[in-house]
This record gives sequence, C-alpha cells and structure tokens, in this order.
Amino acid sequence: MVDAADLKSVAFGRAGSSPAFGTIKLTIMLQTTAQIRVRFSETDAMGVVYHANYLPWCEVARTQLLAEVGLPYVELQASGFLLPVLEANLKYRSPARYDDLISVHAVMKEMPRVRIRIDYEISRGNELLVTGYTQHAFMNREGQAIKPPAFFTEKLQAAFTKASEAQTR
Amino acid sequence: MVDAADLKSVAFGRAGSSPAFGTIKLTIMLQTTAQIRVRFSETDAMGVVYHANYLPWCEVARTQLLAEVGLPYVELQASGFLLPVLEANLKYRSPARYDDLISVHAVMKEMPRVRIRIDYEISRGNELLVTGYTQHAFMNREGQAIKPPAFFTEKLQAAFTKASEAQTR
Amino acid sequence: MVDAADLKSVAFGRAGSSPAFGTIKLTIMLQTTAQIRVRFSETDAMGVVYHANYLPWCEVARTQLLAEVGLPYVELQASGFLLPVLEANLKYRSPARYDDLISVHAVMKEMPRVRIRIDYEISRGNELLVTGYTQHAFMNREGQAIKPPAFFTEKLQAAFTKASEAQTR
Amino acid sequence: MVDAADLKSVAFGRAGSSPAFGTIKLTIMLQTTAQIRVRFSETDAMGVVYHANYLPWCEVARTQLLAEVGLPYVELQASGFLLPVLEANLKYRSPARYDDLISVHAVMKEMPRVRIRIDYEISRGNELLVTGYTQHAFMNREGQAIKPPAFFTEKLQAAFTKASEAQTR
Repeated sequence: MVDAADLKSVAFGRAGSSPAFGTIKLTIMLQTTAQIRVRFSETDAMGVVYHANYLPWCEVARTQLLAEVGLPYVELQASGFLLPVLEANLKYRSPARYDDLISVHAVMKEMPRVRIRIDYEISRGNELLVTGYTQHAFMNREGQAIKPPAFFTEKLQAAFTKASEAQTR
Repeated sequence: MVDAADLKSVAFGRAGSSPAFGTIKLTIMLQTTAQIRVRFSETDAMGVVYHANYLPWCEVARTQLLAEVGLPYVELQASGFLLPVLEANLKYRSPARYDDLISVHAVMKEMPRVRIRIDYEISRGNELLVTGYTQHAFMNREGQAIKPPAFFTEKLQAAFTKASEAQTR
Repeated sequence: MVDAADLKSVAFGRAGSSPAFGTIKLTIMLQTTAQIRVRFSETDAMGVVYHANYLPWCEVARTQLLAEVGLPYVELQASGFLLPVLEANLKYRSPARYDDLISVHAVMKEMPRVRIRIDYEISRGNELLVTGYTQHAFMNREGQAIKPPAFFTEKLQAAFTKASEAQTR
Repeated sequence: MVDAADLKSVAFGRAGSSPAFGTIKLTIMLQTTAQIRVRFSETDAMGVVYHANYLPWCEVARTQLLAEVGLPYVELQASGFLLPVLEANLKYRSPARYDDLISVHAVMKEMPRVRIRIDYEISRGNELLVTGYTQHAFMNREGQAIKPPAFFTEKLQAAFTKASEAQTR
C-alpha cells in the first residue's frame, strides 16, 4: 500500500561522484495502522460505507499514531490543547462494505511546524480503497490558533529521531 | 396520529352527581411537530433509515418544543443546565426512506417534577412509522442531578396554563 | 454485571415432591461481550457519548453473538433475510467518554419464536453505564415479516443445547 | 458569500477597442442554497460541529440542486443510476455550533462530461465557515462506471441554457 519509494528516497550523489562522498537522504516518517471492523450503522442505502464515515476512521488511526508517540489526545485536551481539522481530503477508489476488516494506515511524513499533516491509506486486505489527508492546527481552549506547545514538539521530535535511528541501523 | 382520546380525557362528574353538575377534566399537554427531510446519510444498507437515526429527530422535535415555550436549549446550556437522556424507547412499525418528508410530533403530557418525559410519534403523511419516548433529568455543569431551576418550571407552568386556557375557551 | 440470579433460576421440585427429588431448571442463555474503544466522532457537545450512539455498539455485540453461533449477519443478508429492529430501549446511568474502553455484553435469554430479543449491559470496567434491549423480527427481501428460516432456528437451538451442556457439566 | 466576480466575468475588450470587437465571457453556473439547522447530534466534545458532519450537509445541497433541475436523486436511483463520491475536500475556517442556522451554497460551475464536480460554501449569516468540493461519477446498479445517461445530460444542458438566458437578459 505504501510505495517503498515514498518511504525511503535514497540519493547517492550525482553521477561521477564517489559513493563514499554521496549523501544518503532518508525520508523518516511516523506511521501506524488501525484495524476497523465495518459496522452496519456505517453503511448507506447504496449498500456500502457512507462516504463521510471514513473520516472518523482516519481520526482513529491519527489519534492512535499520536498515542503511540506518547501524545494521547485525551491528555492533549486535558492540557488545554485541541487539534481541530483545517482541511480534509478523501479520494474514493472502491467502497468498503458491512463487516469488512479495514486497515487505516496513517502517516506523518514530516515534523510539523505550525500545521500538522497526516496522510491516510484505507485498505481491505491488499486492496486500496480510499486515500486522503487531513491538516490540523493547534488551538487553545479559547479557540485561538497557537504554536504547538513544547512538550508536543519534543515528543514528536523524539519519535522522529527514534524512527530515523531504526531506519539507519 | 394522535388519538383524540389521549388528548382529552373528559370525566363527567363525581360519583352520585348528575352529569349536569359534573366537572370536566382536560388533560392539557404541550406539543409541537417538527418537519424532517430524510438525508441519504441517515439510511443504511437495508435501504431504509438506520434505527438509531430516529433519536436525533426526536431531539429536534424536543428542543423545538422547549424553544416554543421560551426555553431554547442553547440558553439552558448557557445558564449551566443540561438535560441528559435517562431513557429512550422507540417502537418501529414501518421504515422511513431517503427523501421522505417526516413529521415528528413531540408531546409533554404532564408538568415535569424531577424527570421530564416526552412522547413522540414519527409519521410520513398519515402513516405512523415510529412511536417512542425519552426521559430526562436536570443536571448541572458538574454532572450532578439537580431539581429543575425555578425559571424552567415557571416557563413550563405558564405554557401549561396557556394551553389549558386555549382548550377551555 | 450480569446478576447471577438472572443467569440461573433454580427451581427445586414439583408441587408435593420432596426437594431431595426435585428438578433443577437452569435458564440457559447465549451471550458474548464486544469491546469498543470510544471514538471522538461518537461524542457530543456535552463532552460525552451522544445517547443514540450506544445503539450501533449494541448492534456490534448482537451481530458478534449471531456470528459466534454460526449465523454471520452478512450470510443472513445474502440468504435474503433481514433482522429489522422492532423496538429499542436504553437506560442511561452514567456516560461513556472519548477513548474509554467499553464492554458491550449481549445476551439472548431464550430461544426466539417469532421475535428475537437481545439484552445489553454496557460497562466501563466494573461500572455499568447503560442497560437496554432490542427486539427484532425476521423479514424477507420484499419487506414482509416471516418466520425464522429453519437453518436459523437449528443453529440457535444447537447453540442453546451446547450452552446447556456446558452449564450442567 | 459568492463573489460576484466569480459568477460573471465580463470582459469588454481592452481600452481603446470598439465594443463591437469585444468579447463577452459569462461564466454560467447552476446553484442553490440549502438551509440547515445544526442538530445537537452533529456536535462533538469540542463543542462544535464534528468535521465529518459537513459532508451530509453538502449532500443535502447537492441533491437539492439536482432536484431543482428536474433530477431528483430518488428518480436517478429508481432508474438504476448512482452518483458515488470520487473525492471530497473540505477546508474549515470557523466552526458551526449547535442550533446555528447554516446556509450551504452548492454550485455546478460547468456542464459535466464524465465527472461531476460541485463546489460548496457553508456559511452562518455573512460568515463563511467551510468551503469544499465533491467529485462524482456515474455508476450503474452493477457498480460499473458509466457515462451519464442521455436524460441526465439533457436536463442539465437545459438548465445551463436557461441559466445562460437569465444571465444575458
């Protein structure tokens, strides 16, 4: 589902340069996969999953990703931070159906600065059904857009570093 | 849809008294009807409205009833009061379908003391589809069950009185 | 969560017989428990799970129970049978919240004849949050109420017999 | 909400050119506005409308637009045609809240060939809350992508022609 070329873009210097002096650029990313069993309530009269109902699944995978790097959303909220959705985009290739076992792969491709972007691939077995992304801002309880708090960027940075080390080993 | 016998229970007289001197007891109630156009998102793979999706319609009618007696739910909330659902019961006779125009008739049959009960009749034209009721408690912001505040009972009492006057005229 | 007295109703003996020679009547039931992680999409502006959103969870547990006795709902549908909801009742004691891990215990207390009744207990750990039941009819593709087909009653009867044997061993 | 410059882009040649040689380019479009009252069930624990719940509103406006040009979605379905969503995109500026009266402006900017694109502007009074678009394909009952049927393109063409005439009058 995830193209290997997306996960690692390796560049060995230009032609003519010695590999010894080449640069290796690894695209490090944070990722997770949530498993979802399709509920009957998520279907519509076309007999398939209603198109809006993929967004809650993306959220399940997104919050799982944050929890796995030590940032459970309940704690973010308790600390007074919200991550409202600024943009959501879904492309539908093939529909999910009642009782399907669905994988929602969520990827954070780069360390967020102001906006946080997560990409999704929703699949049934090897069949890619839906792709998409969401973008998020940081907001305080008063509804004002703010910079990500220090503990958030530190946890994420640590996770990116760890992912980087795992990749280069 | 609403049986006339339910709306008015007329009792002619005490035991032993002549009907001519009898008393008329009217069951006064508050009621309203909300109109709902069925959305595609509310259907399921059986091709009809998903059974849980009648509850939000009941809520639309219930909050319309409260708003009509001068108690809009947004103001209740702003005043620190919530009306959580204690019980919900729905009986399904016949399904609503996409694009149907649905009437949700909500009735408060008696002045609430601690609990508030609303009855519902959900119809398409003359066809009764679903009947049900919900029961509610008063809760403060801390989640504690409380007695209805004075302004709430006063507004409701005024509405019942007004309904009573309209009925006896 | 399930009261032991509900699970076993022991009756010692016929009228006139000595308890020593009595018969033991066990109320055998089919049951299962589904685990649900509360999604953010299931909450409402009161900060808790929206009251209608417990019904899809009941359905998850109900269809899990049917699947466990060899009657997956997708196969029922493929065979042309639907199990529409005739009645749903929920009593709310305490609210579930975002990210809670919820158990939905579904019980079929007796072999269904025409109607199928399932009882539910929804809990967070040891705390019982919501109780309820649903009643269902058998319907064919044309929307007509029918008797349960033979394969359905046979599978259920076999499951009740197996549960009975497990209980008396 | 809709910028007038978007609706009509009139170019009368450059300065110095005679009007007789000028070109008039009118952007003709089909459009409608649906009114939505926010339901409590549509909110989430952030106290605002859950981000996925704007998509059903877009659908309400989209099907209203189709109905207004003589193509009610129920008739499309009855004729064996479905309009599944291929892509959905929403950009969130400001949240809608419980009980808000929301306008969903849907626009078909050009006569569809294979894909149908609808743009949306979701507003509360003069405040633009959400913008977005959806893209759709034509599908038959077997789930195969097909060209729009003749009656569909004819009705739409007639509506575009009528909109064009109204604009030039």
